[in-house]
Amino acid sequence: MSSFVRVETPADPRLRDYADLKDVTLRRSLEAAEGLFLAEGEKVIRRAVEAGYPVRSFLMSERWLEGLRDVVAASGAPCYVMAPERLEEVTGFAVHRGALASMLRLPLPPVEKVVAGARRVVVLEDIVDHTNVGAIFRSAAAFAVDAVVLAPRCADPLYRRAVKVSMGTVFAVPYARMDNWYDGLAGLRAAGFRLLALTPAADAVDLDACAGGPDRLALLLGTEGDGLSARWQDQADLRARIPISPAVDSLNVAAAAAVACYVLTRDQSPA
Amino acid sequence: MSSFVRVETPADPRLRDYADLKDVTLRRSLEAAEGLFLAEGEKVIRRAVEAGYPVRSFLMSERWLEGLRDVVAASGAPCYVMAPERLEEVTGFAVHRGALASMLRLPLPPVEKVVAGARRVVVLEDIVDHTNVGAIFRSAAAFAVDAVVLAPRCADPLYRRAVKVSMGTVFAVPYARMDNWYDGLAGLRAAGFRLLALTPAADAVDLDACAGGPDRLALLLGTEGDGLSARWQDQADLRARIPISPAVDSLNVAAAAAVACYVLTRDQSPA
Repeated sequence: MSSFVRVETPADPRLRDYADLKDVTLRRSLEAAEGLFLAEGEKVIRRAVEAGYPVRSFLMSERWLEGLRDVVAASGAPCYVMAPERLEEVTGFAVHRGALASMLRLPLPPVEKVVAGARRVVVLEDIVDHTNVGAIFRSAAAFAVDAVVLAPRCADPLYRRAVKVSMGTVFAVPYARMDNWYDGLAGLRAAGFRLLALTPAADAVDLDACAGGPDRLALLLGTEGDGLSARWQDQADLRARIPISPAVDSLNVAAAAAVACYVLTRDQSPA
Repeated sequence: MSSFVRVETPADPRLRDYADLKDVTLRRSLEAAEGLFLAEGEKVIRRAVEAGYPVRSFLMSERWLEGLRDVVAASGAPCYVMAPERLEEVTGFAVHRGALASMLRLPLPPVEKVVAGARRVVVLEDIVDHTNVGAIFRSAAAFAVDAVVLAPRCADPLYRRAVKVSMGTVFAVPYARMDNWYDGLAGLRAAGFRLLALTPAADAVDLDACAGGPDRLALLLGTEGDGLSARWQDQADLRARIPISPAVDSLNVAAAAAVACYVLTRDQSPA
């Protein structure tokens, strides 16, 4: 049985999970220490619950209660209710989608398990921007990519901003994190994946030539700005580029991911 | 002859152009009233100046002076120099790319002028998010789209966030704004453009079938969430979709724009 609890004071210790949402450094350490993450907005909260993440608590203003009543009731977690302007004092900004949930992280599966049976995998080297990570998950889900694999330093897909931009697809696309950057690709190659490094370099082959390719393909995407490391480019079987105007340096990594997922999943029949 | 002026007080009236950069409402009214916009970071400032936008002033901390000395000197505009922590008090946040310039807007050309000679045009109905507008311009530039046309209510490409995300491509891709939403597409049709509405609707044709299409093509993109209005969908010659997984509602509009620009500009020879 869940309980609805009206809370008046932003400093109430029961609201600690929701403090200072704009402070990335503080949130990172709090969320890691407590093993939690935040879901924002009715649709995203529903998707997280459906994906099996346990709820620690909810925090919302009155007007969002009705839409989430069934989810709150089924969860058994406390639901803190506050006036919108008080809520803003807790989080440090206006929460447009009005409802928040603090959820428990689940242990990530090992990479081998996530890629078993997969045909198309996206591998993110060191994407640092949570918006880009979320956007890449959304495109991966849309083009039915089977799994995402993260390098050790890639930004957290369960960080609030990534969850929001992904529209909750971070809960739907299976993902895992490598233990080891240096030899991280060896396991994928051993599992029979052909490794395709995406790069704006002029000497790479046209991505289009890679469509309808091998049974198991891993698309490698590098960090914003510098792109894939030399190590990973060397380890790849193939370097491919999306042809763009010579007047432009590069595509944004999320735009490049969308185009590459589109091209590489065309004409794929289900495994 | 430009002048370097050390400023100590965040409230100095000469810094008014740079106040409260996080306050979207305030910035919108200030920038409209003064006919200005802000460019951020060395690369973006250079691109704005090269595109012919006059500089009102610069504001930066000491360490960025050297990289922009030539631009400052050529501009004749005052360059205000401040300690980074003072600068943050002016703008309301840490300016990571350290250098700002307040630039004068130029009158936008009429739509007819911007699309004259164009073969591939992107039309944005009511995109409200500055990040999406910036990202769409970056992809449009990368895929050598000839022009962008904005509906009256589409977000401003010269808003700081849009400029930044676009990597300055908002200065390179010609664009114009329609006076009139209701009949805004008539002019494009009269100019010989085939109007292609992008939609996730299941009854639309596969976008791929539209590649290598007519000489003059206008890609219509609708607002986040609701997509294109019924009016514009009715006005279009063709409704096309990017095939995605039935488990996902839609692509992000910037991701969809990247894929569509990629598909529709393949095999285009220069006009």
